[in-house]
Amino acid sequence: MNRANDNRAYRELHERFETAGKLGAARNTLFWDSQTYMPPGAAWSRGEQLAAIDTTCSQLTAGPDTADLFCTADDAAELLSPTERSNLNEMRRMWRHNAAVPKLLLQEKARQVALLQGIWVQAKQANDFHAFASGFELLMPLTREIAQAKADALGLAPYDALMDEFDPGLSMALIDPIFAELECFLPALLVQVIERQSTWPAEIPYSGDFSAERQRALSYRLAEAVGHDLKHVRIDAAPHPFALAGSPGDNRFTTRFDAGNIGFAVMATLHEAGHALYEANLPRAQAFTPVGNARGATAHESQSLMVEKQAGRSREFLGWLASQMAEAFGGDPACWTFANVVRTNRRVGVGYIRVEADEISYPLHVILRYRIERALLDGDLKIADLPDAWSDLSQSLFGRRPPDHAHGCLQDIHWAMGLFGYFPNYALGSSLAAQLFERAVQDDAAVIDRLSDGDFGPYRAWVVPRIHERASQVSFAQLVEDATGAPLSVAALKRHLQRRYLEEDVP
Amino acid sequence: MNRANDNRAYRELHERFETAGKLGAARNTLFWDSQTYMPPGAAWSRGEQLAAIDTTCSQLTAGPDTADLFCTADDAAELLSPTERSNLNEMRRMWRHNAAVPKLLLQEKARQVALLQGIWVQAKQANDFHAFASGFELLMPLTREIAQAKADALGLAPYDALMDEFDPGLSMALIDPIFAELECFLPALLVQVIERQSTWPAEIPYSGDFSAERQRALSYRLAEAVGHDLKHVRIDAAPHPFALAGSPGDNRFTTRFDAGNIGFAVMATLHEAGHALYEANLPRAQAFTPVGNARGATAHESQSLMVEKQAGRSREFLGWLASQMAEAFGGDPACWTFANVVRTNRRVGVGYIRVEADEISYPLHVILRYRIERALLDGDLKIADLPDAWSDLSQSLFGRRPPDHAHGCLQDIHWAMGLFGYFPNYALGSSLAAQLFERAVQDDAAVIDRLSDGDFGPYRAWVVPRIHERASQVSFAQLVEDATGAPLSVAALKRHLQRRYLEEDVP
Repeated sequence: MNRANDNRAYRELHERFETAGKLGAARNTLFWDSQTYMPPGAAWSRGEQLAAIDTTCSQLTAGPDTADLFCTADDAAELLSPTERSNLNEMRRMWRHNAAVPKLLLQEKARQVALLQGIWVQAKQANDFHAFASGFELLMPLTREIAQAKADALGLAPYDALMDEFDPGLSMALIDPIFAELECFLPALLVQVIERQSTWPAEIPYSGDFSAERQRALSYRLAEAVGHDLKHVRIDAAPHPFALAGSPGDNRFTTRFDAGNIGFAVMATLHEAGHALYEANLPRAQAFTPVGNARGATAHESQSLMVEKQAGRSREFLGWLASQMAEAFGGDPACWTFANVVRTNRRVGVGYIRVEADEISYPLHVILRYRIERALLDGDLKIADLPDAWSDLSQSLFGRRPPDHAHGCLQDIHWAMGLFGYFPNYALGSSLAAQLFERAVQDDAAVIDRLSDGDFGPYRAWVVPRIHERASQVSFAQLVEDATGAPLSVAALKRHLQRRYLEEDVP
Repeated sequence: MNRANDNRAYRELHERFETAGKLGAARNTLFWDSQTYMPPGAAWSRGEQLAAIDTTCSQLTAGPDTADLFCTADDAAELLSPTERSNLNEMRRMWRHNAAVPKLLLQEKARQVALLQGIWVQAKQANDFHAFASGFELLMPLTREIAQAKADALGLAPYDALMDEFDPGLSMALIDPIFAELECFLPALLVQVIERQSTWPAEIPYSGDFSAERQRALSYRLAEAVGHDLKHVRIDAAPHPFALAGSPGDNRFTTRFDAGNIGFAVMATLHEAGHALYEANLPRAQAFTPVGNARGATAHESQSLMVEKQAGRSREFLGWLASQMAEAFGGDPACWTFANVVRTNRRVGVGYIRVEADEISYPLHVILRYRIERALLDGDLKIADLPDAWSDLSQSLFGRRPPDHAHGCLQDIHWAMGLFGYFPNYALGSSLAAQLFERAVQDDAAVIDRLSDGDFGPYRAWVVPRIHERASQVSFAQLVEDATGAPLSVAALKRHLQRRYLEEDVP
């Protein structure tokens, strides 16, 4: 981005957005802190600080002269490199989002979000929906107001306008047919697979020393296997696993250390290590600038799911993983056999928690949330009725109702963060992960074969140049097309699930 | 600060400085992170982020229209409350400092500081002065340039100009006679006390389970005793103990957990708990605004030293502390007797580390640094000659030379942070702590008596309204005068040291 050119307006915009990118990276680190180490009594103060950062970023990237700067920069666009032109487009998109929403509204949202996050943690622990609802009632109208302001500015429906901010190129028009196909395909597949698995012997429960220290040690070993340099990584426990984004060289992430669900720490670690690997391989030359960011939420989720589900639950990788878990935890050797670890990781249809869900149920969890959040945003569903709506949808999609709010509508942090329009990427990411991984294995069989030694080298060699290093240089559609030769569809996911769950021999 | 008035210029300034205060609080939290949990490979990225925050704050508080805003605000100063008038003065002082230094210079310094901190941690571990010097050579000219720019703008000597930023009201003119008196008094006292202590039986070394977990548990118990609400505090290990400042409600601090020097964790914790208590009791109504900040570095240090040294090494408190340490660590009961704990905490004249030094040696450590940093700033001392200068001054002040750089010139982080003019407050703080504590005990004997139950209630009742809650509403000189009825002097410190080390019976 240091290329000399005479497009001064572009350079001015570049500098402002780069500063905003740095402040945003600081903000993300403070969010990490609020989820890991911040004293609970600091919530008010932290909210004030985050609101100040948001306001400052918004002033930097949506000042009174910004519209003129974009016009002037466009007039001399021929002086820009292709990357700079992509950066100009990304800056404009961010500006439209920022300029659409009044500053006071953003400040107020940041404050409410900071407070509600603390409430959510406690409400979830105490299974107290009313405590959560009282804060959520304050946040929801702000979310609706922001969505409408963006909708007006961008000429999109309110839900699409929210989605465009973090997942440009995706919309209800793209989601609805994909989700319809999944809703048709997955429940039937689930019944078939449950039937097939009914002849399996019961899994032998994992046993051993499941202290946080041992889980932590295994998590670091897995992060290294995936390809992380430990100078750039740290792994901490947090209620909601996530990876730090936008902070080059700082690829820390969180996971959960739950002695009662030892498989979870492993899979959450692989998932977040996948996200963090994308961040780690973004081009340093475009650090902190919009074109240097990951290409949206769906692309990001595809990277976590390729590692966690496509690679992580393959026969090849599970063989290696079984030996690592045996070494890390000790306990009864019978629970760490290849057969038992495969069956434990392939068993479907149990549990209520999205982040712990099997590959087949997972998109259904997302479809549930998509329906509810669209209804909340449209005003068709009252917050007080949220637990009932959740329970009813669980019944119709999974045939069972969650036993409490922590296993139901309080399980995710997203709504407490004011994140609406975000959930769909979790299911779209499943489709994209399957499509990318299928193509990677077609291009180089070592991508899958080498996983039997825990070696992600061939995997990285395929994915890093095709996805990570391209950052936001091309559109989401172009990225998918270039990497796989086809637009995003659910075809590869359907083939993958049928192959793995109905055709593949289980030891 | 929400009082309605028609001084629009004041209100505009207030809003800008408040936003800068919030960004500064975020910055301080990121510094805490860099000293505790940040992956080492993130240093470059963090430096970029901190530089962006600094630049943004500087633009907020030293924009092209700021001079005019101060003039206009002055013209309607009669509309301001006394607190608002103090805030206006504090904002003006900060503005003068910010406006004096070119933005690019500040950015460059922030970058070098971020890099040098990582280098310092490793150089200290490896006893590698050359590694440190190569980075310090890049930072030192920037520090000198900044000092000269401030000197020109403020009409002060460069050293005084640096000091004025974090310790307004203090200067070489105030320091030099105080340090001269201490240099005259302390070495002679040290000889007398060493002579008196030569008849003591040797201390029984502390023994027990000194795991980090036990040290941490005792640290939290001490923080509570001093008066902290644990909802607002967390305690972590870091190479340099420090307390987070400027972030209301977030009163975390760091300490060291060194199994080889168990007394240190205890005293470092008391020291930082004292700093954090000041932060915790600053008026919430003036949060994030300049008048709501602590009244400079010397006032801050007096609060840590009152807790750590005046209260913390009193006979009364040590009796209670001995029982707490016995309970926390177990081990040989003989080492936790009142007599042994008092003697261990009163032994003088050993060690090379400032933060571990006894009350009599401590100011001499500071005087050593004061001389060196003035010579470095004036250009009279080359960085390459720093270890020799340190060694020679150690010989003349303490009669011994440090065995390595970690016990010598690499022991403190300050110069690696570009902090010059900061060390004097550590010795001035000793004098002020003695003066305040002497007066507190005169006003209410329970301040000292209740410490025998670990009860800091009467102490807080005296100090909170007189120091903490006044924040920066009055000048340093006024604060000292109002609290003690006299200007700052070394008289109380001299009386205190003679009483405690020459007159008081030791069990």
